[in-house]
Amino acid sequence: DHESESEDEPQEFDEETQRALEEIDSCQNEIDALNEKASEEILKVEQKYNKLRKPFFDKRNTIIEKIPNFWVTAMVNHPQISLLIDEDEEDCLHFLTKLEVEEFEDIKSGYRIKFFFEENPFFENDTLIKEFHLGSSGDPKSTSTEIKWKENMDLSKKQKEVITMRRKRGLEAKTFFSWYVDHGDPSADDIAEVIKDDLWPNPLQYYLVPDLDNENGLEEEGSDEGEED
Amino acid sequence: DHESESEDEPQEFDEETQRALEEIDSCQNEIDALNEKASEEILKVEQKYNKLRKPFFDKRNTIIEKIPNFWVTAMVNHPQISLLIDEDEEDCLHFLTKLEVEEFEDIKSGYRIKFFFEENPFFENDTLIKEFHLGSSGDPKSTSTEIKWKENMDLSKKQKEVITMRRKRGLEAKTFFSWYVDHGDPSADDIAEVIKDDLWPNPLQYYLVPDLDNENGLEEEGSDEGEED
Ligand SMILES: [Ca+2]
Ligand SMILES: [Ca+2]
Ligand SMILES: [Mg+2]
Ligand SMILES: [Mg+2]
Repeated sequence: DHESESEDEPQEFDEETQRALEEIDSCQNEIDALNEKASEEILKVEQKYNKLRKPFFDKRNTIIEKIPNFWVTAMVNHPQISLLIDEDEEDCLHFLTKLEVEEFEDIKSGYRIKFFFEENPFFENDTLIKEFHLGSSGDPKSTSTEIKWKENMDLSKKQKEVITMRRKRGLEAKTFFSWYVDHGDPSADDIAEVIKDDLWPNPLQYYLVPDLDNENGLEEEGSDEGEED
Repeated sequence: DHESESEDEPQEFDEETQRALEEIDSCQNEIDALNEKASEEILKVEQKYNKLRKPFFDKRNTIIEKIPNFWVTAMVNHPQISLLIDEDEEDCLHFLTKLEVEEFEDIKSGYRIKFFFEENPFFENDTLIKEFHLGSSGDPKSTSTEIKWKENMDLSKKQKEVITMRRKRGLEAKTFFSWYVDHGDPSADDIAEVIKDDLWPNPLQYYLVPDLDNENGLEEEGSDEGEED
C-alpha cells in the first residue's frame, strides 16, 4: 500500500517552504530559550520568597503548638479535608501537634507533608511523612512513612468497611489514612494539593470558621452543641 | 432557636488562646504581604519575557503567512483541536492566514485569540476574535466577534445536526464554530486554553507531525503500514 506508507514518511516541502520552516524553527528556538530563562527567573523569585516566608511559618507553628487541637479543628472545618476524616481518625488526629509542608529546594521536583504526633494510643511513630517527588523516569511518585500501629489500634484495618459504607451513603470513599498510604496516582493527589496550597498557607481561617454547609450536610443526628465549655 | 444562633457567633477563647490566635494572625499577615510581593515580582518577570518574546512571535507569524494552510494543518494535526473541526469547517479554516494570542498587559485579567482570514466564500469578516476577560463582578467572561456569514454559507446553521450526529457516534460534540460562539463557562474553556498554552507556543510541532494515534482512531478505511521504509 504505497500511498499510506508515504503519509508516514517525513513530508517533503518545496524549497521555499522548507526555508520558511527552518526560519520558524529558529524563531521557535529563540522563544524556547526565553521561556527557559523566564522559568529560571521565576523559580529564583519563588525560592527567595520561600526563604523569606520560612521564619513566619516557623513562628506560626511554634504558636500553633500552644493551641490544643488546632490542626484537627482546622482539618474538620476544611470543606475538602473534612470529607476524608472518619470518626476514629478524628480521635487520632487530636494527637497531631504540628503540620508542616516543605517544598524541595528547587521547588519543581517535589514536596513533603510532615505530620508530627505526640505520644498517642494509636501508633508508635512521632512523625508521619508523605512525600511527592519525581521518580527516576521523571514521573511523579509518592511515598509515606510506614505507620507502626499499636496492638488492636490499626485504623487501616477497618478502612475497607468504612470505605464500603461511605460509598453506599454517597460520601467520599477515601479516609485520611487510606489517602496517606495511597500512592496510586501521585500526579492527581487532590488532597495533598489542598493541604499544600490551601490548608498550609492559611489554616487559621479554617480553625476559626467552621464550614457550616458541610457541617449541616453530614450530621444527621440533631444539632451539635459546638465548642461551649 | 438559641442554640443554632450561637454557632454563628464568634467563638470565645480563653485569654491565652486568644493571644496565640492574634499572634498567628499577625504571622499570617506577614506571609500574605510576602505572597503579594512574590506575585508582583513574578508578574514583572512574565511581563518582561512577554515583551522579549513578542518580536519572535511577530517574525514567526510573518513567515507562517508564506506557508499555505499552515494553521489549518497544525490544527487538524492537534490531538484536541482536531476533534472539534468538522469537514466544512476545515474547508473554511483553509482561509485562516494568521492566528495570534495576545495576553492583556497585566496578564492576569485576560487574553484574546485572534483569527485572521483572507477573502473567503463563508463570511465577510477578516478578523474573528474570541476574548476572555474578567467581568465587572470579577468572574471570567468571554465574548467573540459576530460572524457575518455569506448567503447560504452559515456553517453554524448545520451545527446542531452535526453535533447530534457526532454525539451519536461518541465523538466530541463541540465543533470549531460552536466553540467560538460558546460563552457558557469561560472559566473552563479547555479549547481556548489549549490554543493559548499549547498550539500558540509551538504550532510547528503540530504542522510537521500529524497526530497518528488520532488519525488511526478516526479513519476506518484500511490499516496503516507504520513507519517502515
Ligand atoms: Ca465541616
Ligand atoms: Ca489528526
Ligand atoms: Mg470524635
Ligand atoms: Mg476538507
